[in-house]
Amino acid sequence: MKFGGSSVGTVERMKHVAQRIVDKKQQGHQCVVVVSAMGDTTDELIDLSRQLNERPPAREMDMLLTTGEQVSVALLSMAIHALGHEAVSYTGWQVGMMTDGTHGKARIKDIKAHKIREALAKGNIVIVAGFQGMTEDQEITTLGRGGSDTTAVALAAAIGADLCEIYTDVDGVYSTDPRIVRKARKLNEISYDEMLELAFLGAAVLHPRAVEYAKHYKVRLVVRSSFTNHEGTLVKEEAVMEQGAAVRGIAYDKNVAKISILGAEDRPGVLAKVFTALAEEKIDVDVIVQSGVKDGRADFSFTVSGADLEKAVEVVKGLKGEFDFEDVRSESGLVKVSIVGAGMVSTPGVAAKMFDTIYRQGVSIQMVSTSEIKVSCIVSGENLTEIILALHSAFGLDASTEAFVGGPKERR
Amino acid sequence: MKFGGSSVGTVERMKHVAQRIVDKKQQGHQCVVVVSAMGDTTDELIDLSRQLNERPPAREMDMLLTTGEQVSVALLSMAIHALGHEAVSYTGWQVGMMTDGTHGKARIKDIKAHKIREALAKGNIVIVAGFQGMTEDQEITTLGRGGSDTTAVALAAAIGADLCEIYTDVDGVYSTDPRIVRKARKLNEISYDEMLELAFLGAAVLHPRAVEYAKHYKVRLVVRSSFTNHEGTLVKEEAVMEQGAAVRGIAYDKNVAKISILGAEDRPGVLAKVFTALAEEKIDVDVIVQSGVKDGRADFSFTVSGADLEKAVEVVKGLKGEFDFEDVRSESGLVKVSIVGAGMVSTPGVAAKMFDTIYRQGVSIQMVSTSEIKVSCIVSGENLTEIILALHSAFGLDASTEAFVGGPKERR
Repeated sequence: MKFGGSSVGTVERMKHVAQRIVDKKQQGHQCVVVVSAMGDTTDELIDLSRQLNERPPAREMDMLLTTGEQVSVALLSMAIHALGHEAVSYTGWQVGMMTDGTHGKARIKDIKAHKIREALAKGNIVIVAGFQGMTEDQEITTLGRGGSDTTAVALAAAIGADLCEIYTDVDGVYSTDPRIVRKARKLNEISYDEMLELAFLGAAVLHPRAVEYAKHYKVRLVVRSSFTNHEGTLVKEEAVMEQGAAVRGIAYDKNVAKISILGAEDRPGVLAKVFTALAEEKIDVDVIVQSGVKDGRADFSFTVSGADLEKAVEVVKGLKGEFDFEDVRSESGLVKVSIVGAGMVSTPGVAAKMFDTIYRQGVSIQMVSTSEIKVSCIVSGENLTEIILALHSAFGLDASTEAFVGGPKERR
Repeated sequence: MKFGGSSVGTVERMKHVAQRIVDKKQQGHQCVVVVSAMGDTTDELIDLSRQLNERPPAREMDMLLTTGEQVSVALLSMAIHALGHEAVSYTGWQVGMMTDGTHGKARIKDIKAHKIREALAKGNIVIVAGFQGMTEDQEITTLGRGGSDTTAVALAAAIGADLCEIYTDVDGVYSTDPRIVRKARKLNEISYDEMLELAFLGAAVLHPRAVEYAKHYKVRLVVRSSFTNHEGTLVKEEAVMEQGAAVRGIAYDKNVAKISILGAEDRPGVLAKVFTALAEEKIDVDVIVQSGVKDGRADFSFTVSGADLEKAVEVVKGLKGEFDFEDVRSESGLVKVSIVGAGMVSTPGVAAKMFDTIYRQGVSIQMVSTSEIKVSCIVSGENLTEIILALHSAFGLDASTEAFVGGPKERR
């Protein structure tokens, strides 16, 4: 069972979570619980650090931030004791969550889970601090974004858990963002691959790293609400598709910018040069499109996050000496809209239906990108709501009732 | 260098402490720094825990409270980096501060200081979280009251430090409480034994555990202010006495209560029964006086902390079945006033002078207790200030200038 920061953000919520865990135990389950830092704790610690050092060393940042989860596990354990049950809390290093030494975004290398097994065998509820680990040199590390989800999935894999439940502030994975489409449908099941696409495409219920981990170790995941008893969404290898449906869900990513390099000399290695230079500046490139070559000159375009646009343009212009091009143009305020579904590959005409639906909204498609289980279109952001509503309806995803929409998104 | 919670209670103070440490380093010293939790952090965490569990398990309390010092060390390290110097922070478990498993008041068993030595050898300033350790089973422990002082002294012993500086909010050890006697004299030197008596007697500049540790391992201690550059007080084996002086200082303990057992049957083991029963309830007994036996019946009196009075009386009355006595009486609102000095043993008439000075204030002495280096009197609390002023003057301790008096007392 994993509970995010907003699920344990107050004393009352902490008590509520303790009761849920005790209920689960009383149903006959052995429980290992992963918790994030309470509510705004992490942001407050970051604020404090910036007052002392505008560029604090990553090692010391990890030392600082890991206290947030340590406070949570201790308090949650106390709350469970108050209900008359045995619980024992552990930090990342105590449960042998071994990572590499990349402070701020360490990767899990190994989990020495014997301490958890022993504590479970003694009848304890085991509470583990999410988001944190230790290197072989006993340095404290954090796993970065999605760290607590990843902790939960990795522990579930290490101890061979029957199920890994991710409790959050929405009651499952939806066919699209229920804040836009009130008739978004809660999915009963979804495959790892579909979940990965949705995660990467901005439907941030689960962090993609956690989904990848779950896929690799075949951990059965459930995403469900910590505030309701609704059943949630099961994420597993092969998810059942409803009859006739090819599309599982619709995702979007709001903050997209496009850069076009026009009239670039067409010789081998030019593209590699551009994307290597961008990677060195830690700028992620998403959709890439190259148009046909004419007179030995080519145009190509790619998208980056809006936040990276300025820097990306700078990087590209700085390559002028390395290869020749006529112009660089950029455009921000774009969105990426995607349809995702494992059934797509065997259903002809899905992409065509998507393009047609978007055109009917009077919107022109600027770029397209496809994989076996998704089609993404880059379009102007002005008509986003209408596009999503139209696609949701066109692919038969509208539910008969309105969705439950919870509190704010969680950080970790 | 050890800095208490009020010395690092705000961002500004943290920066100030960082600068002091860097100054020390630039004077050519290798520095290991022990820090407590910032200001009220510990109290806030305790408050939070009580909202979840009125009697939180000691193990989980240690898990919770140790985060306070971890936050401090990370932030202080960042503040030092901001000044352009290398620093590295460690928790108790990371520096091999091994303790027994008594959560809440663990005792240090061993320190595996190689990590500190390695970090120093690389030119780092080393910042260590005070108050905390780890058992052999990797359980997190705290050292209890005075824990950060003890951490500092123990580390100084383990790495063979030339000096252990305890930075606090007063600029040294005074001949008495400068809040009462404005002409209290700052002592340049004091012996471990004298410091121990002063510590136990309520002059809480240094925790007695830390002083005992320092005495045992012959660690040279300096108590000095984190807010001024005054020289402080050196605590060592043999301290130089000023000419003709027998008394080093005057201590007091305000919250004293007396219990008298009247007409108790006089047979072996009665006293042992009483004090064993009190010890089992964790009630500390201080001064004990037995008066003469008459008709096979004896009276005896002892003092406890005012906070323990009610429980102590209950314990004594509960022993009625085990031995016979006529009555139990109690009195609260008493104080213990003590004179301390290693020169006392070789100076006749010191005790007599003390008694005489107190009598001249029109105060009767209820109980007396002596050791080689101190005399303590239990008196009514009403004239405490006058008594201390009179004793301070009578033993020639008045300084020619008034004392610097800093902020509030520190917890750890």
